[in-house]
Amino acid sequence: MATVPLISDEVASAEVLAVFNDIRETRGTDFINNFWRALAHDPALLKATWERLKVVMGPGTLDPLTKEMIYMAVSTANGCEYCVHSHTAAARAKGMSDAQYGELLSVIGVAMQTNGIVTGLQVPVDDVFKA
Amino acid sequence: MATVPLISDEVASAEVLAVFNDIRETRGTDFINNFWRALAHDPALLKATWERLKVVMGPGTLDPLTKEMIYMAVSTANGCEYCVHSHTAAARAKGMSDAQYGELLSVIGVAMQTNGIVTGLQVPVDDVFKA
Amino acid sequence: MATVPLISDEVASAEVLAVFNDIRETRGTDFINNFWRALAHDPALLKATWERLKVVMGPGTLDPLTKEMIYMAVSTANGCEYCVHSHTAAARAKGMSDAQYGELLSVIGVAMQTNGIVTGLQVPVDDVFKA
Amino acid sequence: MATVPLISDEVASAEVLAVFNDIRETRGTDFINNFWRALAHDPALLKATWERLKVVMGPGTLDPLTKEMIYMAVSTANGCEYCVHSHTAAARAKGMSDAQYGELLSVIGVAMQTNGIVTGLQVPVDDVFKA
Amino acid sequence: MATVPLISDEVASAEVLAVFNDIRETRGTDFINNFWRALAHDPALLKATWERLKVVMGPGTLDPLTKEMIYMAVSTANGCEYCVHSHTAAARAKGMSDAQYGELLSVIGVAMQTNGIVTGLQVPVDDVFKA
Amino acid sequence: MATVPLISDEVASAEVLAVFNDIRETRGTDFINNFWRALAHDPALLKATWERLKVVMGPGTLDPLTKEMIYMAVSTANGCEYCVHSHTAAARAKGMSDAQYGELLSVIGVAMQTNGIVTGLQVPVDDVFKA
Repeated sequence: MATVPLISDEVASAEVLAVFNDIRETRGTDFINNFWRALAHDPALLKATWERLKVVMGPGTLDPLTKEMIYMAVSTANGCEYCVHSHTAAARAKGMSDAQYGELLSVIGVAMQTNGIVTGLQVPVDDVFKA
Repeated sequence: MATVPLISDEVASAEVLAVFNDIRETRGTDFINNFWRALAHDPALLKATWERLKVVMGPGTLDPLTKEMIYMAVSTANGCEYCVHSHTAAARAKGMSDAQYGELLSVIGVAMQTNGIVTGLQVPVDDVFKA
Repeated sequence: MATVPLISDEVASAEVLAVFNDIRETRGTDFINNFWRALAHDPALLKATWERLKVVMGPGTLDPLTKEMIYMAVSTANGCEYCVHSHTAAARAKGMSDAQYGELLSVIGVAMQTNGIVTGLQVPVDDVFKA
Repeated sequence: MATVPLISDEVASAEVLAVFNDIRETRGTDFINNFWRALAHDPALLKATWERLKVVMGPGTLDPLTKEMIYMAVSTANGCEYCVHSHTAAARAKGMSDAQYGELLSVIGVAMQTNGIVTGLQVPVDDVFKA
Repeated sequence: MATVPLISDEVASAEVLAVFNDIRETRGTDFINNFWRALAHDPALLKATWERLKVVMGPGTLDPLTKEMIYMAVSTANGCEYCVHSHTAAARAKGMSDAQYGELLSVIGVAMQTNGIVTGLQVPVDDVFKA
Repeated sequence: MATVPLISDEVASAEVLAVFNDIRETRGTDFINNFWRALAHDPALLKATWERLKVVMGPGTLDPLTKEMIYMAVSTANGCEYCVHSHTAAARAKGMSDAQYGELLSVIGVAMQTNGIVTGLQVPVDDVFKA
């Protein structure tokens, strides 16, 4: 249960609908997921968040699947249940195979493990790693 | 300053040297970074950690650069200074361009931002995202 | 589902009831939320936690709403679902408007985003920021 | 030591200088802190980050000091050393007194403590807290 | 709801069943908890994770209950709901008393609190703490 | 460098000195570590923090070393450099052997790893784990 009611198309303002429609067009689907419907309570925040996400997750030098896996990895480290679900689904929609998903989880697991051990040992940064 | 002295080759046991040498051979370099030299205080943990990391970061369906970027993203979310430095350096060594690095940071930034907003709003997971 | 049953008034010990009643009197409501009912399994921890929280969230130089928003922001960064809900509700009860809530979420979002980018870049602290 | 060299005004591109100058004008100071100088390696990310931060931290219904304290609280929970230093300095520059700083730290401390206890107990959200 | 269906014994491959059976034998129970049934989607990750966990949580110089409490404490700090539940249950099964559980939660609470205050104050490490 | 100057005995108020002296007496040493000297800027927070820590880390059903290891584990998961150093030193002072330290790091590593994998898979809590 969100801290705010989810905004349906029926009650959305013109400003909110404009963002919803851009999401639909950009993604090629009518479906608007709950994140945007909750965020719609603050139209300015909705618009700023979508416009930034659209640029960052749009065409670039990293392919779309790689971006989704990085997004999912960050969301996992931050313990964001919704984000893990939505970006795992997005990664699959962009072609992530079972084998790739297993490797993604494996890298996350090893990274978390060594993050903990390194922090526990307070290992000093090697000079060669510094810019 | 680590919580333990770093183990040089000179004082390393045969068991530790065997791991150091496998790291050298696998990576094609004589350089052993501080993480392994600190971890060498517990030869069993050193061996288990290296053997797992070698498998996970080795050949698979995700390319080596993608794996390093995921590793770096998790390390950033966890705030592990050493890990951020070492895996940024590793990603560069595996060919990460300035443009790719900028996109990696951008995706991390947007993921962190929406992780915070989603958690603040406690958005419920959409049914379509569930397996 | 908590890891312990919630303690109702009916089964509460005199020591627990004394804390429950102080919570009621301090807050001007009969309602005792689940946190205190779960914590009541350890009366000493219940008492110490309530007494500290009562002082910290009580009168001071920061107004009550500001304190609740700071509390909610920390809880969001830590991913504590219960705490996000309870302190969002408390902030609203203390007068947080929709516009203020939107700004709170916006600041959390920008802070999370730049926390990630700064950590990714390992930016050194400027000398002028040091005490 | 950052993962990238810091960009001085001398080597900055016109695009980067335009952002630096907007920061100077907005803040009424010539000083550009290291975050922006590191971020300047990716002019597009620099521009997008500054423009969003300028809006979010600018005039609104929450006063500037409250916003800085929320920013500092999130940065503390995320363990971002640079961000803690820069936003503590910013809060002081906006008038945070020693007493307010002590209360800010006290609220962060109590929030962290109860975040941990609530998560440990897995307390279910009270129905009244749900929107 | 997991991101993958849970693997029952009926549909498990021989490789997965071999791990399940080793878990059963090691723990002296027929019960396989959901973590392993979800992980079974990637038999190699299942096997590697179980084999490492079996060693780490097996006989050593720290007693089994102490290891479970440390595991639960880390899981709490990371906000992992499932892990908190499973390792609290495991600690109880290994003899954790109500008084010990209260102390575990108290230590977690104080640690979280001082972690926040120390990070907020950016306290420099005392020379005597360095190895 | 802390966000506040460290308070030496020479400039400490009577209220602060009383806490410093109680720390000295309780610990059987003249040494006051930096955390308390930084916290001394807010005498009320110093007193409340020390009095709570003294109770929680004092005699109980968990032995002092176990409490220190739990404290260190939480601090590691939260990425608190100072806390990791001070509680590793405290654990050693209370008798932690090299073998125990290696096991502590191993449990932290495995917990971090499985926290990440469980969160990535969004594993539902087994009914038997619920109170």
